[in-house]
Amino acid sequence: MNNVALWMSQPHHGFLEIARACGINALVLELEHGTFDLATLDQFLAYTKMVGMRTLTKVIAPRAESIQQPLDFGSDGVIVPHLLGVEHAREVTKAAKYPQKGVRSFSGGRVYGYGAPTSDALETENRRTKCYAMIETAESLADVERIIELDTVDGLFPGPSDLALARGRGAYDFGEADRVDLKRIATAARNAGKPWAMPAWSASERQFALDHGAELLVVATQNMTIHAGIMSTLGALKSEKIIP
Amino acid sequence: MNNVALWMSQPHHGFLEIARACGINALVLELEHGTFDLATLDQFLAYTKMVGMRTLTKVIAPRAESIQQPLDFGSDGVIVPHLLGVEHAREVTKAAKYPQKGVRSFSGGRVYGYGAPTSDALETENRRTKCYAMIETAESLADVERIIELDTVDGLFPGPSDLALARGRGAYDFGEADRVDLKRIATAARNAGKPWAMPAWSASERQFALDHGAELLVVATQNMTIHAGIMSTLGALKSEKIIP
Amino acid sequence: MNNVALWMSQPHHGFLEIARACGINALVLELEHGTFDLATLDQFLAYTKMVGMRTLTKVIAPRAESIQQPLDFGSDGVIVPHLLGVEHAREVTKAAKYPQKGVRSFSGGRVYGYGAPTSDALETENRRTKCYAMIETAESLADVERIIELDTVDGLFPGPSDLALARGRGAYDFGEADRVDLKRIATAARNAGKPWAMPAWSASERQFALDHGAELLVVATQNMTIHAGIMSTLGALKSEKIIP
Amino acid sequence: MNNVALWMSQPHHGFLEIARACGINALVLELEHGTFDLATLDQFLAYTKMVGMRTLTKVIAPRAESIQQPLDFGSDGVIVPHLLGVEHAREVTKAAKYPQKGVRSFSGGRVYGYGAPTSDALETENRRTKCYAMIETAESLADVERIIELDTVDGLFPGPSDLALARGRGAYDFGEADRVDLKRIATAARNAGKPWAMPAWSASERQFALDHGAELLVVATQNMTIHAGIMSTLGALKSEKIIP
Amino acid sequence: MNNVALWMSQPHHGFLEIARACGINALVLELEHGTFDLATLDQFLAYTKMVGMRTLTKVIAPRAESIQQPLDFGSDGVIVPHLLGVEHAREVTKAAKYPQKGVRSFSGGRVYGYGAPTSDALETENRRTKCYAMIETAESLADVERIIELDTVDGLFPGPSDLALARGRGAYDFGEADRVDLKRIATAARNAGKPWAMPAWSASERQFALDHGAELLVVATQNMTIHAGIMSTLGALKSEKIIP
Amino acid sequence: MNNVALWMSQPHHGFLEIARACGINALVLELEHGTFDLATLDQFLAYTKMVGMRTLTKVIAPRAESIQQPLDFGSDGVIVPHLLGVEHAREVTKAAKYPQKGVRSFSGGRVYGYGAPTSDALETENRRTKCYAMIETAESLADVERIIELDTVDGLFPGPSDLALARGRGAYDFGEADRVDLKRIATAARNAGKPWAMPAWSASERQFALDHGAELLVVATQNMTIHAGIMSTLGALKSEKIIP
Repeated sequence: MNNVALWMSQPHHGFLEIARACGINALVLELEHGTFDLATLDQFLAYTKMVGMRTLTKVIAPRAESIQQPLDFGSDGVIVPHLLGVEHAREVTKAAKYPQKGVRSFSGGRVYGYGAPTSDALETENRRTKCYAMIETAESLADVERIIELDTVDGLFPGPSDLALARGRGAYDFGEADRVDLKRIATAARNAGKPWAMPAWSASERQFALDHGAELLVVATQNMTIHAGIMSTLGALKSEKIIP
Repeated sequence: MNNVALWMSQPHHGFLEIARACGINALVLELEHGTFDLATLDQFLAYTKMVGMRTLTKVIAPRAESIQQPLDFGSDGVIVPHLLGVEHAREVTKAAKYPQKGVRSFSGGRVYGYGAPTSDALETENRRTKCYAMIETAESLADVERIIELDTVDGLFPGPSDLALARGRGAYDFGEADRVDLKRIATAARNAGKPWAMPAWSASERQFALDHGAELLVVATQNMTIHAGIMSTLGALKSEKIIP
Repeated sequence: MNNVALWMSQPHHGFLEIARACGINALVLELEHGTFDLATLDQFLAYTKMVGMRTLTKVIAPRAESIQQPLDFGSDGVIVPHLLGVEHAREVTKAAKYPQKGVRSFSGGRVYGYGAPTSDALETENRRTKCYAMIETAESLADVERIIELDTVDGLFPGPSDLALARGRGAYDFGEADRVDLKRIATAARNAGKPWAMPAWSASERQFALDHGAELLVVATQNMTIHAGIMSTLGALKSEKIIP
Repeated sequence: MNNVALWMSQPHHGFLEIARACGINALVLELEHGTFDLATLDQFLAYTKMVGMRTLTKVIAPRAESIQQPLDFGSDGVIVPHLLGVEHAREVTKAAKYPQKGVRSFSGGRVYGYGAPTSDALETENRRTKCYAMIETAESLADVERIIELDTVDGLFPGPSDLALARGRGAYDFGEADRVDLKRIATAARNAGKPWAMPAWSASERQFALDHGAELLVVATQNMTIHAGIMSTLGALKSEKIIP
Repeated sequence: MNNVALWMSQPHHGFLEIARACGINALVLELEHGTFDLATLDQFLAYTKMVGMRTLTKVIAPRAESIQQPLDFGSDGVIVPHLLGVEHAREVTKAAKYPQKGVRSFSGGRVYGYGAPTSDALETENRRTKCYAMIETAESLADVERIIELDTVDGLFPGPSDLALARGRGAYDFGEADRVDLKRIATAARNAGKPWAMPAWSASERQFALDHGAELLVVATQNMTIHAGIMSTLGALKSEKIIP
Repeated sequence: MNNVALWMSQPHHGFLEIARACGINALVLELEHGTFDLATLDQFLAYTKMVGMRTLTKVIAPRAESIQQPLDFGSDGVIVPHLLGVEHAREVTKAAKYPQKGVRSFSGGRVYGYGAPTSDALETENRRTKCYAMIETAESLADVERIIELDTVDGLFPGPSDLALARGRGAYDFGEADRVDLKRIATAARNAGKPWAMPAWSASERQFALDHGAELLVVATQNMTIHAGIMSTLGALKSEKIIP
């Protein structure tokens, strides 16, 4: 089930464990709109790294420190939101890779097994960690073909809701114009020979994503699954005539 | 939906809010096997009290301090586990009521609106908070008719899993012998004119509970609903042939 | 008492509840100099939103992510510190409003009742949340009349201490020059038909604020009220000759 | 100001620091009805010990583990609630002293400067830490003269509210019968040549306590001082006609 | 290195990970004198269980709830302190095993992979988790040969410091009388065909433990190793004449 | 031992206390790569300030808010990472000093003893707190002689690992080229009459630092000392033939 991930916004360890018990192998951790503080994030990533769940961390902001922290703590990759054009993306995503490729700041610790790394280890870390450019502004969409060519960018990740808003379409509803934008992103990734991933809450979004070669489908949020689980219980109660 | 509650073991605030958004009005907070520390419990109960969700707190142990803390913090009632015979129940449940009825220790604060209470207010508090005797040992089942008659006991709450173990039946499966025990509890409550509540994960348990006059059905745990929500997503993915 | 707020810097839930018991209906949450981490802030705002206390959140920095987080969590508004001239203010305060008005990033959850919002809901949210431009630099004062005209700015909030420092007057003492600056801010707001609010620890500051049409007076800090409360006890002890 | 203490129920570090800035040298930490978890209590006591504020910790319950933890963490003493007669007091308070005097369990760490203690150090610790027997049940009052004679009891601490309830008088109001009980406690302490301390929120209680030789007056709670501080601000606003 | 454990009193996740990186496979978690709150303990045990570090949890007190919680959270065993004679041990250690062997209360969750257990699974859990009786009182030493024969006791664990105090010898120094007591414990375990484990900070204690067949040596505390690590740095600085 | 500091990345209070018990008087707190959240940092600095341990806080990013927070909480100084050329340094380090020297934002509280400061107090605070410019980019090294001349910069602090990476040398190994860079930094500081400090894990780095006039040697990290402490125990076990 390596093509499927869940989206978590709140650091509830029980949810993480149940997801794993259900066979989930990958997570997107939502730092931008979520409630992960540093110490909590550190412990979460200690656990996911150890059990081999893949984590992509959607960072708080397109800034060096926001990108470095989850990588320091062991995340397998970052999703960098709110990139503007290619020059902004070039500048910001440098923080995801050590020199000479980029400008990531070195920190020992978990990633290096609490020992001193060699130069080779830094190269290995540059390959281990993936940097996804989030495409959710008009500017980044306009430059998407050039953004995906950056050395410091390993893949693309559309932000459909913000992209729809930014493009003047109001709330996202996976309409025709949304699909045109998503297709452009998918095409840019394919042409560059790099992966892309997509939040795909509905069957039609998932079919679209698969049709366009997405590497990873983020199929539901933590909130959605909780909501669905409670509503399914309430549905049973209704059919049992226990509640109206 | 006042006859239905969920069972929470971990203090995830998002779960609480989503449950409320789904229409849930009552919660059992599992302190005995859960991860609620004092400060967290205090904030949870501040919130539930304010929004009018009814909380029954299953306390850590049949001890005075364990009973008093959630009541101090504003819980609407306690469920007292691991009671033995009626003398043990008499002794322990005193902590749920102020003198002369019991021996609950006074504490100002949230319950009294951060002002000084009158003697009347203490009486009101004795009525506001409900003390459920948990029936999950052989000894408490043997004495259940006398336990429910205690002044300090407002209702009964069977613990089917522990009761099945204690009665030598191994893992609980709502079998015939389980139902006989549960019926005895229900009957004792009815004869005393006091309510009883029951964890009822399945339709047949719920039907049983209703047939025997249960006031409140605890219909699912936090873990169950999360598990169901994730599995429902995975079920969709299977039918979409995205996962095998 | 809708014209009066307290200023909180530390997430002490008891203080919040006592303030509410005293009749306080509005709070300024000081994130820039305070100790609110994300998870704590989230729970605070869950509570204040539910009990109907109005919260204005003074954010950590004039950055998009700092503005978005408290709004995502349900705050009624933000106070944006350290704005420079009008172009800086225009750029930064965009984060307080969804497109097309601004560039706020969408996040579901508490604000939308854990359901999916319509485009209308986004408009409603743009109106619900208020963005106050803090005027506490020489540059923002110089441009105050143009800042308040921005579509993304709903009101003004002077920072008297920093403004006095920035204007070369040293520690703020509500002197003549301070009043001239404050008056300019008040006038700009009135001319734009938008509200302004003011930290007003003393009677004379409060009188000034009222005289100049302030919508909201922030009348004391958490620290001040604690200090006053303890000193009042010590005052009693002195008059009782218990302490010298 | 060594004869005066405040009563804290919630671990707000800012309150602690402000209290110290006001000259407060002693605290009662309310664990029984408060929200101090272990890690928080540990850090609180690390701080108070270092700055030389005297702490008496009112423990969660009359149990060995509840008594030992705050002493391990560096508290200067414990107040043991809900003692019954002298035999109960004898049994329980043993946990406050190392053998042969009692049965306190040894733990290294902060108390011994993170080194290994000698037998002498254990004796010193037995003298450093004070064990106050709380007199708040009818049984303990009946035996107060014998409780104070116990080797493991260093002083007395009445619990006026619970004592009034236990003695059938309803809510405590420092009435005649209350004073008779308090006087008996004071007399028992004096006759034994040991100190006693009293919660004394009002001037008349404080006068009474002084008249009867109390060593320490607990003059206000954290909640009371916060309430007083906010109300004093509101009082000013009323006199300024800002609020009705 | 399965015969060696470290002793942790404070929930520092970095220490845990470094210990593991050094090859440590087993831990004693000190709850009685430590600072592990419930939520923290839960996360610690989630991690250690997943990475296969063996944990023995020295519980807060000889009480059912204290024993059950770490087992619920996944600990591999408990060390039960402050047992008195064999009847006390019999009563208390029942909480470590499900019926019919004991009275442990059932809780689903992590231990059962978040699914519903069969009766067999309960038996398996009874075997997976080990209950060590701590021998640190005069009473438990006097009954040690009968305590180790209890069905609910899987091994012995001396508490040398408390035992020395309880036996009137003052601070423990691994003297002749200490060794006589320890030998009696070792002999009782061997005769019963059950393991014993020992805190052994010094080479001579370790030699003694091995000579007497200890299954597990707890070789240092968290505090000791931190202290040693810092002192080793300071030692280097002295030899470099950087500090006096 | 005022010339020696340890480097902490994780807020473990026990480590802090043991370090102090060992005679350590100064700490570098690593916020950029560490796990200090705001509330935790605040309590840490409350403690270190009170016991007189000097703290230099390596802040999360070269931004105003990151610099101000630890100073507000009482830190003795900041180390500002990832400075680029002198213009960037000039802009960023302004946040470390109040006007007119800089643009630090005023906040009352701990630093001012919870009272209102005078203009003089602000000057005193400007002198009390030290701002170290971290030299770890090619750009900042190129401008180091001009950076150290800035009014808002009190000293220099090389970041050898990042500097080696940035200068294209791969992992830092204190080689010839590293020493040339470090010497340039030392010389710039000496010529400006301002101090510099250096992370110096090895004897040769320490000798170098002393030879070049470093004011403060950061001699080991928290992780290093824990690792060394555990390995020293394991070394003993090997020599005792307990482990292979």
